[in-house]
Amino acid sequence: MKRTELVENIFRKGSFLCVGLDPDIKKIPQHLLANDGNGEHPVLRFNKAIIDATAPYCVAYKPNLAFYEALGADGFGVLDATVRYIRANYPDQFIIADAKRGDIGNTAAMYARSLYEAMDFDAVTLAPYMGEDSVRPFLEYKGKWAVILALTSNKSASDFELVKDLHDVPMYERVLRRSRHWGSAVDTMYVVGATQAEHLAHIREIVPRHFLLVPGVGAQGGSLADVARYGMIDECGLLVNSSRGIIYASSAEDFAEAAGKAAAEMAAEMKALLPVE
Amino acid sequence: MKRTELVENIFRKGSFLCVGLDPDIKKIPQHLLANDGNGEHPVLRFNKAIIDATAPYCVAYKPNLAFYEALGADGFGVLDATVRYIRANYPDQFIIADAKRGDIGNTAAMYARSLYEAMDFDAVTLAPYMGEDSVRPFLEYKGKWAVILALTSNKSASDFELVKDLHDVPMYERVLRRSRHWGSAVDTMYVVGATQAEHLAHIREIVPRHFLLVPGVGAQGGSLADVARYGMIDECGLLVNSSRGIIYASSAEDFAEAAGKAAAEMAAEMKALLPVE
Repeated sequence: MKRTELVENIFRKGSFLCVGLDPDIKKIPQHLLANDGNGEHPVLRFNKAIIDATAPYCVAYKPNLAFYEALGADGFGVLDATVRYIRANYPDQFIIADAKRGDIGNTAAMYARSLYEAMDFDAVTLAPYMGEDSVRPFLEYKGKWAVILALTSNKSASDFELVKDLHDVPMYERVLRRSRHWGSAVDTMYVVGATQAEHLAHIREIVPRHFLLVPGVGAQGGSLADVARYGMIDECGLLVNSSRGIIYASSAEDFAEAAGKAAAEMAAEMKALLPVE
Repeated sequence: MKRTELVENIFRKGSFLCVGLDPDIKKIPQHLLANDGNGEHPVLRFNKAIIDATAPYCVAYKPNLAFYEALGADGFGVLDATVRYIRANYPDQFIIADAKRGDIGNTAAMYARSLYEAMDFDAVTLAPYMGEDSVRPFLEYKGKWAVILALTSNKSASDFELVKDLHDVPMYERVLRRSRHWGSAVDTMYVVGATQAEHLAHIREIVPRHFLLVPGVGAQGGSLADVARYGMIDECGLLVNSSRGIIYASSAEDFAEAAGKAAAEMAAEMKALLPVE
């Protein structure tokens, strides 16, 4: 998906919500585990119901690959079917593989083949530790995006991401400064945790036009208002992700309805924060 | 597998070779693609033949997950079957998932479930960018290992891994200094590229007892003699990986025989480099 299309979807829907599809088979409503005869994997049934309920209120979905791999041999089939379901029914959704891949060039090319050819993701999250080689193969696909980890939402982000170099520049800032030249604002995004709102104004000085994928609102404690205050630009430039707060809004038979309601509430908050076009 | 067992295998076999199982379906011998009637995936047949031919000369196998994910929905089945084949037939082999995973705690726990429960790997390679949270869940499995990226073999390792902090300490050294306290030399290894031999002596000052997983000998140009000179300790402390130089030693019908010969040659070189017990 092109940047212009993503921006248009955000303003048309009045939402910059990304729904994280991280379905733990131990946490999804237990009635889904009973075989209802159609042979569909319970996690796929869960995903379809969540997607149908939330699609009007979000512009992106972000399946986290760990949750599919944990299903064993079925996992990639369920993931692939989920992506196909979104593409077929909600073609205006941006689909991000939250994979945090990062490896040498020939391996990175295989991950790109998996996520951009075997499956039809729009974007992949990437860990920058190994440098440019590990990101470059993902940028070679036209119309696809690299979403590079900058400053993450977890506590131990301070272990390495915030370490300052000889010029007092923290590692995450070096990642931004270097990698913004590998691609551009039409094919590269950055992950910045909502719990790092105090750094967002500074990040905007370095990457004024790039989209930021922001996890950590909700379960991890980040504030949507702060993220918008320091991170939003005229074309929005934000995708704010919520996973557990939406997909586990209820663990009963009304789980999908509850997820839709939670997504609608976030979208309403977001609409009020979007700039007037 | 315990460290004592790994060390014993190395000295008994006179080898510290790890064979990288990175089978690209576009590069494996084309006669394997013809259906021979038994219904087994061609990549699995390739792997089994390579494993049978090389097992006497190596102590570890390292499937790179990207190459299995690139197979699409079949990929994880082929990977799982490969691990089971090694376990059943060559129980003295150490099996490393080259996955370079790294994510927040609840996601890392799902990757660990996939690789240590759904599949029976001994170890997983991990990217340290996100810090301790992203490694900790892998260390909670007794008898399993975390293999953390320190200084990789690729050219752009210099982008971030070699960047010095305010105290003149490069990032990779900070990764070593911090993470050596998360676990210990019986459950943590480090990835150090063979192309980085000039740093190995310094790395040994920081982690004198840890095993190092060393890629980059062969196709990437590193020297086995240099790796042994600067990195070897009394208990060996090295697993040197070769992937393409072994598995693609021949692309004809003799591919397995050629792989065995290439592995035997590396093992002979290694035997001469091992300390006398």
